[in-house]
Amino acid sequence: MISPAIADFLDTRSAPTPFVVIDLGVVTSRYDDLAAVLPGVELCYAVKANPGEAVVDRLAQRGSSFDVASPGEIDLVLGLGVDPAQISYGNTIKKQRDIAYAAARGIRRYTVDSDIELEKVLAEVIDPIICVRLFHDCNGADWPLSRKFGCGAADAARLVRRAADAGCEVGLSFHVGSQQRHLSAWDEPLQVCASAARAAGVTLDFVNLGGGFPGTYLDEMPPISAYGAAIMGAVDDAFPGGRPALLAEPGRYLVADAGVLHSEVVLVSRRDVDPRLWVYLDVGVFGGVAESLGESIRYRLRPTCAAPLSGDDDEVVLAGPTCDSADIMYDKTGYRMPVELAPGDTVDLISAGAYTTSYSAVGFNGFAPLGQYHVG
Amino acid sequence: MISPAIADFLDTRSAPTPFVVIDLGVVTSRYDDLAAVLPGVELCYAVKANPGEAVVDRLAQRGSSFDVASPGEIDLVLGLGVDPAQISYGNTIKKQRDIAYAAARGIRRYTVDSDIELEKVLAEVIDPIICVRLFHDCNGADWPLSRKFGCGAADAARLVRRAADAGCEVGLSFHVGSQQRHLSAWDEPLQVCASAARAAGVTLDFVNLGGGFPGTYLDEMPPISAYGAAIMGAVDDAFPGGRPALLAEPGRYLVADAGVLHSEVVLVSRRDVDPRLWVYLDVGVFGGVAESLGESIRYRLRPTCAAPLSGDDDEVVLAGPTCDSADIMYDKTGYRMPVELAPGDTVDLISAGAYTTSYSAVGFNGFAPLGQYHVG
Repeated sequence: MISPAIADFLDTRSAPTPFVVIDLGVVTSRYDDLAAVLPGVELCYAVKANPGEAVVDRLAQRGSSFDVASPGEIDLVLGLGVDPAQISYGNTIKKQRDIAYAAARGIRRYTVDSDIELEKVLAEVIDPIICVRLFHDCNGADWPLSRKFGCGAADAARLVRRAADAGCEVGLSFHVGSQQRHLSAWDEPLQVCASAARAAGVTLDFVNLGGGFPGTYLDEMPPISAYGAAIMGAVDDAFPGGRPALLAEPGRYLVADAGVLHSEVVLVSRRDVDPRLWVYLDVGVFGGVAESLGESIRYRLRPTCAAPLSGDDDEVVLAGPTCDSADIMYDKTGYRMPVELAPGDTVDLISAGAYTTSYSAVGFNGFAPLGQYHVG
Repeated sequence: MISPAIADFLDTRSAPTPFVVIDLGVVTSRYDDLAAVLPGVELCYAVKANPGEAVVDRLAQRGSSFDVASPGEIDLVLGLGVDPAQISYGNTIKKQRDIAYAAARGIRRYTVDSDIELEKVLAEVIDPIICVRLFHDCNGADWPLSRKFGCGAADAARLVRRAADAGCEVGLSFHVGSQQRHLSAWDEPLQVCASAARAAGVTLDFVNLGGGFPGTYLDEMPPISAYGAAIMGAVDDAFPGGRPALLAEPGRYLVADAGVLHSEVVLVSRRDVDPRLWVYLDVGVFGGVAESLGESIRYRLRPTCAAPLSGDDDEVVLAGPTCDSADIMYDKTGYRMPVELAPGDTVDLISAGAYTTSYSAVGFNGFAPLGQYHVG
C-alpha cells in the first residue's frame, strides 16, 4: 500500500508537513506495466499530472514521450534533454505566440479541435503533424470531462481533410475521462475515429487513445492488463484493415500510486452544531487536494495516532486548514478514523501522486505550496 | 468602473497576461468609507483576501488592524512594522506550534470554537484574549460559509465562561458569509452573542462582527452606508445597556473593487457538439478565478476587441486555458460577448481584487501563478 522507499522516508526524514513523496521506482514500473499491455503504443506522459522534474526525468530515461500543455511544460521537458520529436503539444487552447515558441524549439505535433486553432498552427509551424480531438461523452469516469474539448465527427472529418489537404500528417484523438472504470469506454470513440476518417477520405497516420488509466483509490478498478486487452481489441475492431500508429497520454496511472501525501492533524473537534467529528488537516482543497471536489477522487487514508488505539472509530468530516468554508475535502464519503485521533497525529493520503502538487495554491491563507520529495 | 490609475496602467504598460492591477487609492478610500459607516469599530483587514505586500502596507499606514490565518501572514504583517497588538489570529484551525510562533511575536488575540483549540491557546500564550466563534447559517451570502467554523450558543457560553475563568479577556465572533446581500443578516447572530454572554454570566470585552461586506459584481448590492446603519442598529438592539468594543474583518470589501484582472482571449470556437460559443481566456479556475466555482461570484466583464464592432453579441461559455475539464468559469450565467471577439483580444474582469492572486495554483499545466501590480 505504501512502497518501502516511501515508508522509509516517512520513518526517517523529518520534513515540514504537508508534502508529497514520490517513489520514482513505482513510476518506472507503472510505465513498464502500461507499455507491456499496450504493445507498440507510444506513451506520452501527461506532464500536468505531476510536473516534478525528477518524475519527468525518470520517464524520459525510460523512453517516454510527453504530452505538454504550455511553454512552461515544454521548457521543463526540453531542459531534461528530451528530443522535440517526442513531444506532443496536446492542449487544444494555445496562444499563437506559444505555438510559435514551440515551433521554434522543433515541436511538430499539435492538437486542435476547431478551424481557428488549426489556422494558428498552419500559420506558425512548418510541416506540422495535426491531431484533431474528438469530443467524447465520458460515462464511467470519476473525473469526467466536459464539452470544453473536442469536436464531433462532422467537424473532425472536415478538419482532418483540411489538414491533409494542407500537406500535414493527420490523426485523431479523444479522451474517455480521467479514472475511467469502464473497459468498453474506448470502443465507441475508436469507431467514431474510423468513421470520421472514412468520411474525410483520409487514411489516419495515427490515433491517440488519450488517458483514463486509473490510480488506486477507494473503489476497486480493473487491472491494467484488462485495459490493455480491451483497448487493443477495440482498435482492431475499429481498424480491421490494420492498426494505425497509436499513442496514449497516461498521466494519473503513471504517478498516482507512486505518491503519498503526508499531512498533520491540526484540530479534531465535535461542536454542538454538528453531531459529526470534524478532522482538520494541514492540507486541503487549496493546498493540493483539489480533486476532492465533488468527492470524485476518494483517496485511501492512513491515520497514525500517538495514543494507543482502542479499536473504536468514528465517522469524520475531513477539512483543510484555511479560513475558507469551501475548503472541505470529504463531507459525504463517510471516512472513519480512530477515536483517539488528535492534533499532531498524521494522516497519509495514499496514491496521491497525481494532480496534487501542481494544483496547490501559490499561498492561499499564507500557507506555502505543497512540497514534493523524490525517493527510489 | 475602472479607476483612472488602472486604466492608465492598462493603456500604457505592456505586461504578460494574465495579471491583476490593484489601485491602492481605491483600497484606501474603501477603508475610509467603511470606517465612516462603522464608527468606533476596529477594522481588521482579512489578509487572505489579498496578501499583496503593497496592499497590506497601505492599510497599515491607514491604521488598519489585521486578521491573519497563518504564520506566513503573521510574518507578512509584522514585516511591515505593524504592532502585534493590532493583529488577530482569527483562524480557528491552528497548529499548536503556530500558536507558539505567534505568541513569541507578541500576538495575544486568538479565535477558537472548541475546547481543544482553547486549550492549545491557554497552553502557549500568556494573557491571551480569546474570541469564541459562533456558527451562523448564512442565508443571503453569495459565497456561503459551512459548518466548518463556529459552535452553537451552548458551546460558546461554555467556552467563554471557561476562558473568563482562566483570566482571559473574552469576546464572541461570527461571520454572516462573504458577499452578504441581506442587511438584516447581523441581527440574529448579534442577539445570539448577547444571549450566550448572559448564559455564561460574562460581560463580553468585545464582539467581532466578521466580514460579509460586498464587492461590486453583476448583482446590485446595498450601499455600504446601509450596511453600517443596519449593523450599528443591530448592535444597539442586542446590547441595549451599551455597545461592547467592536471589531470587523473586512476583506473583499476593501480590495475587490480596487482590482482588475486583465486577461487575453486564447481561443474562440463554436464546435458541432455545442451550439454555444466557447471563449477560452488565459486565466481560469486554477489560475485565480476560483470564486467562479458554482458561478457564485459573477464578475463584470469588459471585452476589448481589435476588430470594429457591429454591435451584435452572442452568449458565451467562459473557460480557462488548462487541459482540465473542470476549468470552466461560467457555463450558466449567460455572459454575452461581441461576435467579433477573437484570439489576442482582451477581457477584463472588473472588481477582481479579492480572492484571485492568492487562490492561483502554483503552476498547474505549467502556467505561472497570477501576477499582481500596484498603482495609485
